[in-house]
Amino acid sequence: MYEELKAICHQANLELPKLGLVIYTFGNVSAVDRKAGVYAIKPSGVEYDRLRPEDMVIVSLETGEAVEGRLRPSSDTNTHTVLYRAFPKIGGIVHTHSTYAVGWAQAARSVPLYGTTHADHLAADIPCTEFMPDERIANDYETETGLQIVECFRKKHLNPDEIPMALVAGHGPFTWGTTAAKALYNAKVLEELCRMALVTEQVNPAAARLKEALIEKHYNRKHGKNAYYGQK
Amino acid sequence: MYEELKAICHQANLELPKLGLVIYTFGNVSAVDRKAGVYAIKPSGVEYDRLRPEDMVIVSLETGEAVEGRLRPSSDTNTHTVLYRAFPKIGGIVHTHSTYAVGWAQAARSVPLYGTTHADHLAADIPCTEFMPDERIANDYETETGLQIVECFRKKHLNPDEIPMALVAGHGPFTWGTTAAKALYNAKVLEELCRMALVTEQVNPAAARLKEALIEKHYNRKHGKNAYYGQK
Amino acid sequence: MYEELKAICHQANLELPKLGLVIYTFGNVSAVDRKAGVYAIKPSGVEYDRLRPEDMVIVSLETGEAVEGRLRPSSDTNTHTVLYRAFPKIGGIVHTHSTYAVGWAQAARSVPLYGTTHADHLAADIPCTEFMPDERIANDYETETGLQIVECFRKKHLNPDEIPMALVAGHGPFTWGTTAAKALYNAKVLEELCRMALVTEQVNPAAARLKEALIEKHYNRKHGKNAYYGQK
Amino acid sequence: MYEELKAICHQANLELPKLGLVIYTFGNVSAVDRKAGVYAIKPSGVEYDRLRPEDMVIVSLETGEAVEGRLRPSSDTNTHTVLYRAFPKIGGIVHTHSTYAVGWAQAARSVPLYGTTHADHLAADIPCTEFMPDERIANDYETETGLQIVECFRKKHLNPDEIPMALVAGHGPFTWGTTAAKALYNAKVLEELCRMALVTEQVNPAAARLKEALIEKHYNRKHGKNAYYGQK
Repeated sequence: MYEELKAICHQANLELPKLGLVIYTFGNVSAVDRKAGVYAIKPSGVEYDRLRPEDMVIVSLETGEAVEGRLRPSSDTNTHTVLYRAFPKIGGIVHTHSTYAVGWAQAARSVPLYGTTHADHLAADIPCTEFMPDERIANDYETETGLQIVECFRKKHLNPDEIPMALVAGHGPFTWGTTAAKALYNAKVLEELCRMALVTEQVNPAAARLKEALIEKHYNRKHGKNAYYGQK
Repeated sequence: MYEELKAICHQANLELPKLGLVIYTFGNVSAVDRKAGVYAIKPSGVEYDRLRPEDMVIVSLETGEAVEGRLRPSSDTNTHTVLYRAFPKIGGIVHTHSTYAVGWAQAARSVPLYGTTHADHLAADIPCTEFMPDERIANDYETETGLQIVECFRKKHLNPDEIPMALVAGHGPFTWGTTAAKALYNAKVLEELCRMALVTEQVNPAAARLKEALIEKHYNRKHGKNAYYGQK
Repeated sequence: MYEELKAICHQANLELPKLGLVIYTFGNVSAVDRKAGVYAIKPSGVEYDRLRPEDMVIVSLETGEAVEGRLRPSSDTNTHTVLYRAFPKIGGIVHTHSTYAVGWAQAARSVPLYGTTHADHLAADIPCTEFMPDERIANDYETETGLQIVECFRKKHLNPDEIPMALVAGHGPFTWGTTAAKALYNAKVLEELCRMALVTEQVNPAAARLKEALIEKHYNRKHGKNAYYGQK
Repeated sequence: MYEELKAICHQANLELPKLGLVIYTFGNVSAVDRKAGVYAIKPSGVEYDRLRPEDMVIVSLETGEAVEGRLRPSSDTNTHTVLYRAFPKIGGIVHTHSTYAVGWAQAARSVPLYGTTHADHLAADIPCTEFMPDERIANDYETETGLQIVECFRKKHLNPDEIPMALVAGHGPFTWGTTAAKALYNAKVLEELCRMALVTEQVNPAAARLKEALIEKHYNRKHGKNAYYGQK
């Protein structure tokens, strides 16, 4: 069962090392089937070159428990469950430990919107959560990680369909999209935006955030009602 | 029609990811046929590995409108049109979001001429435009982007045939050349010069601009009347 | 004799350049057979692409002398001997001059535990030894290098089975593990942690060490009694 | 004639892009035949993938003029001639514009000896020349570049057989060795040492030069009378 979903999830996980976003088992991708009420996710701690489609684990969106598969799902599974529940339009989630995104997450800074490469993808700084309080760490940690992202978006009045990425302070990036492929794209773009932002500050420590008119122009020419980037 | 022009443009676009200058669709190349009064440009938002020669869009230099091709041209098309009109000797234009060039553009700094690698290619700092005023952003944005580059060259008394590159503040690099291949070469060289200049400032924050005599010597041995670099 | 041990050691040495951890002959791996009382190590100064399994040198754990092999063992052999004797549970050792780990070693700083990528692997800063006093350099230098690592772990009350890596001040990294393959894994992870820590400080010079509760959570979910990362 | 010399020189030039030390035509290698009184050098401005062995240009050590070959020799030929004349034991010379070496050269700083990777190869800081005075630039520039390196070594009492590399201020690196292959090795090592030194200063701006006892120990175990690194 769920062969197509497993194949999509498997393929997306194989892209992680090809995109230079992970070494060893430092990341995972999941893909959801909203109608079936389940998602497929990478098994925990298995290296990408040994992964087979049938190794993907199927998790119920309702219970958050694995419903099919011989292997244990990613240790980050509960974070995925929280995000799928809170963000109803997303179809795939990616978690990596890519170098520059982790650098910003460890520095606990949101990534300032410095230029049009950033604005082509999102019209806000890339949000970084707060550090998790000890009592929440002691609780169901991975569920709390997801909740932290959700709360960060609520507090900052951010729309997850427009801002498909977040940094978890001290940890690293999560990205998502309407499909697993788009979540992967966002993971690669996030890493590049983090690197560009660091270079920008190194070249000019007083670099200014991009002016609002340019942010709106670039975001809307690609994502607005009258978008004219790409093909119809 | 324009099969050769499309083939040249197609081939040049495929070089962008091979040269490490773009990920996904973060760039475009165009090539002009001055006699025919048209140029070929990459279609908007199509990934490089799916591009076919026949996908290239033919644009009229006179009207700035697409005159052949099933696909929409690059969203940056009007910038290309402005540059071809203002710089009558250039034969190709490249726009990328390469990491270090974007870093300097986002930092809104011209790249100081720190060494002979730079002087081998141009005898001036790599110019960075000013940030675009809001009323021009609200206007025909891509045309204004081209005009900004042209005005920057006029204000600074720069010759576009000698300085085949510019950074647009908050955005990224545009390069050009007598052919699309030379514009590509300049895009790669620009990225490397931006990286070297950052390393230079990191090694010595008080690094000095190269002395004029060395700038002239290196530029002229390659580009001057009595140039002796390369083959006759 | 020792054909299997030599094959393991040979294979592990070939991984060094593939993992991007060495150029030329800038590193070596050894693998021990505790029952036989010997370990296999790379011969000194031989490039990886010329290495054959039969070139590996067999060294006695008791005497520290080569007992089989036509070639001279790595000049770092005595360091390996000291570590195998002092850390009785380890099965393999890796020494490299990988760029970022060398940068931290030359800077003579322990690598602060800034995030969960680090805590997933060890629950302490990556220790850096002190600089070796002149009289010990004049003595048996490579033996003293090993002793410096061992003393550093004693002074700081660190468990080498939990912290499988060290930086030698002014020199570079040594890593180990229950097998040569795990020592290699730790060498790659160390290099990445060193790079992430530098990026972290560049993004935020006031970045804080990760809070203890997060360190414990991440270390224990992978290495503790109730670990739930990976497969059973 | 000189077929073997041309083949050696050709092969060495092809290594430059493979080692990641050049893009386009940003470098050249020469190889000398002291008995024949000539050296072979890359032709000027020809890309590496088009180079054939028969394209190498043969230059007389006595006159400094090309004595065989259809193409013009590298524009840096006179620098090579000066170095071969002044350093009688060297057999090959490499000039590149590799990124980090150029960064230090543009910053006009000698590279401090921060660690054992450096001391394994040379027991001194990597020397950087002074900036060339205008009257010498106006003279035979490439000859003066070579003379600057030679004078730098004399002033600092450096032995070119022990210190096979130099940075020319505002320009970039030259390396040499008893063979062209060893000069290439030194060019790669120099680039890596420059990168490591920058990382070291970024990790610790107050990083100290390596203590003399460690410098001597590492240099001598590889290059001294009682060297024990490598095979007999």
